[in-house]
Formats: sequence, C-alpha cells, structure tokens
Amino acid sequence: MIQRLAIIGVGLIGGSLARALRAAGEVQEVIGCGRSTENLQLAFDLGVIDNCTQDPAVAVKDADMVLLAVPLGAMRAIFEQIGTVLRPDAVVTDAGSVKGSVVADAIAVFQQLPSWLVPGHPIAGTERSGVAASFPGLYRNRRVILTPLPQTDATALARVRAMWQAAGAEVSEMDVARHDQLLAATSHLPHMLAFGLVDALTRMQESDDIFRYAAGGFRDFTRIASSNPVMWRDICMANAEALSLMFDRFGDEMSDLASAIRQGDAEHLLDIFTRAKAARDRFVDGIDPQSSDIPVSN
Amino acid sequence: MIQRLAIIGVGLIGGSLARALRAAGEVQEVIGCGRSTENLQLAFDLGVIDNCTQDPAVAVKDADMVLLAVPLGAMRAIFEQIGTVLRPDAVVTDAGSVKGSVVADAIAVFQQLPSWLVPGHPIAGTERSGVAASFPGLYRNRRVILTPLPQTDATALARVRAMWQAAGAEVSEMDVARHDQLLAATSHLPHMLAFGLVDALTRMQESDDIFRYAAGGFRDFTRIASSNPVMWRDICMANAEALSLMFDRFGDEMSDLASAIRQGDAEHLLDIFTRAKAARDRFVDGIDPQSSDIPVSN
Repeated sequence: MIQRLAIIGVGLIGGSLARALRAAGEVQEVIGCGRSTENLQLAFDLGVIDNCTQDPAVAVKDADMVLLAVPLGAMRAIFEQIGTVLRPDAVVTDAGSVKGSVVADAIAVFQQLPSWLVPGHPIAGTERSGVAASFPGLYRNRRVILTPLPQTDATALARVRAMWQAAGAEVSEMDVARHDQLLAATSHLPHMLAFGLVDALTRMQESDDIFRYAAGGFRDFTRIASSNPVMWRDICMANAEALSLMFDRFGDEMSDLASAIRQGDAEHLLDIFTRAKAARDRFVDGIDPQSSDIPVSN
Repeated sequence: MIQRLAIIGVGLIGGSLARALRAAGEVQEVIGCGRSTENLQLAFDLGVIDNCTQDPAVAVKDADMVLLAVPLGAMRAIFEQIGTVLRPDAVVTDAGSVKGSVVADAIAVFQQLPSWLVPGHPIAGTERSGVAASFPGLYRNRRVILTPLPQTDATALARVRAMWQAAGAEVSEMDVARHDQLLAATSHLPHMLAFGLVDALTRMQESDDIFRYAAGGFRDFTRIASSNPVMWRDICMANAEALSLMFDRFGDEMSDLASAIRQGDAEHLLDIFTRAKAARDRFVDGIDPQSSDIPVSN
C-alpha cells in the first residue's frame, strides 16, 4: 500500500495510474503537481487527486512514491527540484518513453544514478492528453517496462513493480539501450510515419479533397498523428540515435518498394506484402485473438 | 430494381454489395462467379448469391447489371470473356482501386471505352477478404467514386449511381487521373508504409521481441498490412505512376524529419507535429465526430 503518491504531471498517464491505484485500494493519498492550475482543479474535481501544488518540491515532500509523468524535456528540471527534499525511503519512477535520456538527466543532476530512481515506461496511452482522458483501466493487461541499473535499490524496484501490477499491468525488465531501440521500432518510427504522412498531405495543393476522400483505414493509420506534439518533440530529441537508425532501415525498405513499383517487379512486391501480412496476422493473433472489423479503404 | 446482378468475384466487396441490395429489396437475383467453388458454395450457403458459375461469360448472360470485383490484374481477362455475351442493355461497373488501368484494359480489349462501362470505386473495405467477411452495412455512409468518361452512357451512369445509393453509399464523380492521384495519397501510400514497416521489423534480428512489446497504437497503425497481398500487388502495378510520385513526396518529408532529428532541431519538429495534429484532428472531426479511445503506445 502506498501512503502518499506524488504525481508530477497529472495527465493521461499520471491520472490513469492514480485512478487505477485508487480503484484497487492501493494508495491512501494522491498529491498532484503540474503547471496548469486549471488541469489540477479538474483532476481534483474528478477525484483523481486529493491535493495539489505547482511546486514539485512541495509535492514530493512526505511522499513514499513519486511518479514523474512529464514530457522528457522537463525531467531534468524536476530532478533538480526534488533531489534534496525527498524522504529517505522515497522511491521515484517515471513514465518517459525514452529511458536513456532520463538516466542521463539523473546522472547529470546527481553525479550518479540515485538508488531510489527506477526508470520505467508503461506501454499504454491513447492519442489524447490531459487528466480528462485518464481512466482506471488504461494499464490493464498492458506492459510496463522497467529498466533498472546496477545502482538501483532492489526494494525500490520491487515497490515500483508492485505498484504497476496493482494497476493491472504486466511488468518486465529490460536494458536501457534495448528499451530505447525497441521503442524506436514499434512506437517512435510509426509516430514519425503518421505525423509525416499527414503533414505531407496537408502541404499538397488538393489537401482538402485528400482528407475528404480518406476513409476508415486512413483514420486508423493516422490516429497516432493526433498525439501531443511537445511530448513527441521531446521523444525525438531524447531518442535521436536509435530513431535515426530506424529511419535508415525504413528508408532502405521504402527504396526497395519504390524501385519494385517503378520497375514493375510484381513478384518482389507480392513477396514483401505476403511476408508482412503473415507477420502482422501472427502478431495480432498473439496480442488480440479477436479480429477487428474497423473499416479500411483500399 | 436490378433484375439479375452478376458479381464477378464474390469476396468482401462483391458479397457486401449483394447483401446490401438484398437487404434493401433492390435486386431480384444474384449470380456469383469466381474461381473457388468452395467460396461460391459458402456465398450460396450464406444467402449472398442465388446461383453460381466459374465462367464469367455464363454469369453475365441475361444480367442487367454486372459488378467486376476482382483484383485489378484480372480485369482485362474478364473483359475479354464477357464482351460478346452481354445483354444489349447491360451495365457493367467495377470496384477496382485504380481507375486508369481499368479504363486502359477496356480500351485494349474493345478498341474504345464501351458506353456500358462505368468505372467505379467504393471507398470501403476492411483488411479481411472473402465472402465470409462481407456484411450488408459495409457501404453505409461510405463514399463511392465513379469516373465516367465522355463515352459513358448517361443511363448506365445513373443506374450504377442508383445501385450504390441503394446500398447506402454517397456517390460522387471524378476524373480518372484525379481519382488515382487521390487514392495514391490517402490509401495506396499508407498501405505501402504499413506493409513496409511490418516487413522491415520482421527482418530485424530481434523481431519477436519487437512484436511482443508493440502496443495498441502499432496494431492500429499496421492493420492495413493484413490486407490481401495479391490485390495490393495489382494496385501497385496499376497505379505505379501516381504512387511513385507519392513515394517521392513522402521521402522528402521523411528526409526533412530525419535531418531535424539528427540535428536536434526541436523547433522544426514541433512545427511539423503541431501542423499534422491540427490537420488530423480537423479531418477526424470532419468524418467522425466521436472521439476514439483505442489504446496507443508512446
């Protein structure tokens, strides 16, 4: 049971964790911290938090568990603000989509990785932001990846693991670099493709018509382009190396496809599409046995 | 009221039209034609068709309306088989995702575009194929684009328009080339990105882990990579020119994004993401006022 949970950044991620832990009876008190008093008021009105402050140092004082759920670009400043006021037995974790930058920020502020910091990443979310979008079931059967380092305290790690499990998540551990590579492939690159496609179409002369005649498949495909631009700017800056590598790999694949199309290499195209369909069908069977009927345009 | 509808290719598209027209009481008899007797038997058992044959010439004999719902690569052979046996007052339309190639195939077979041919494209579908996936509501509130040419008979055009309207669709007309450019942008390129992404990840060493840790956003983004490989091979071959142009445009956008990421140009990244999000939100508001909560990974 967490006595006092401080959530720095009460949005979709932080708000949903608070709601889940409350629903599970696993937290006594939730302190919300953020820059927008309007959002904090809303979080209070929605029953997501019990108290709030705009000062991270005030929020974490007396907290036994702290979640940093702010854009990656804000992590370092938060570390600077909370480092000296944490309770001796406090545990801090974060929800950043890149782990290398969080670890680097912590080392920059504290000279070494503090034993009380458990870098983490819940693989969950929607394209919507803010506490109004939060809901207690967000983490149910979702994966949370923790990337502890040798310096990480074993008890701190166990407490963070237990917290996410109480929220319904399946927790696994992974090396920091491996996490960042994996997420570059499965999340960061796909977001770049969606943002890039929508932006490219927006800049075409006939963009109004283009969007008018787009159908359900386009809506699904571009859903992630409705994600928070600041968060994604920070992810790109924080995971530039792994993401650049994925741009290169994907660029090679696209060049191959484009030249097959230009050269009319029907067999090669069929190979690629067949292999991709098989992998995608296998993967979907793995994570969701129910087939979906969401409309797709051809 | 259609007396006898011949559907060449009783899959998702053809089967759903038959079901919709039956439900609306707008067709008396449906003849199904395809290469797989198993699929035709299933279509019969499901009540989608009244009779079936594997011979297109037999199927269209005595039909007053014919729908060609086969992969684009099969269109020309069908034209060759049905041209001489059509009823004098028969109307033929198709559901191909590229219109230039269908028109070219018809001209190759008949020397000029027949007045009874109304090239068309229902902007609807799912990633699933086959008559088992068909359902009567597939076209409800979906767009169908017809691309008549000067040679097209006005009555034939009106009858095809009425048929799709009876199935619940919103019918509009467009120039052939414009249709193919529009679809290259909103459907063909997105399918290439989804197929290409899944294939690129499949070919990475750690592909099992990659798919294991992918979340809901990835599932949505790659849904269209589960589409029929043969159909998409044919679309690429048929719309190579417009699609190649879109590859170039998208490639420029990706190069721009990649160099912004490598150079740490945070402002430029934020501009792109903000513009894309605004367009996508506006577009979604336009086609579906309900917000979606389908999970997306970050």
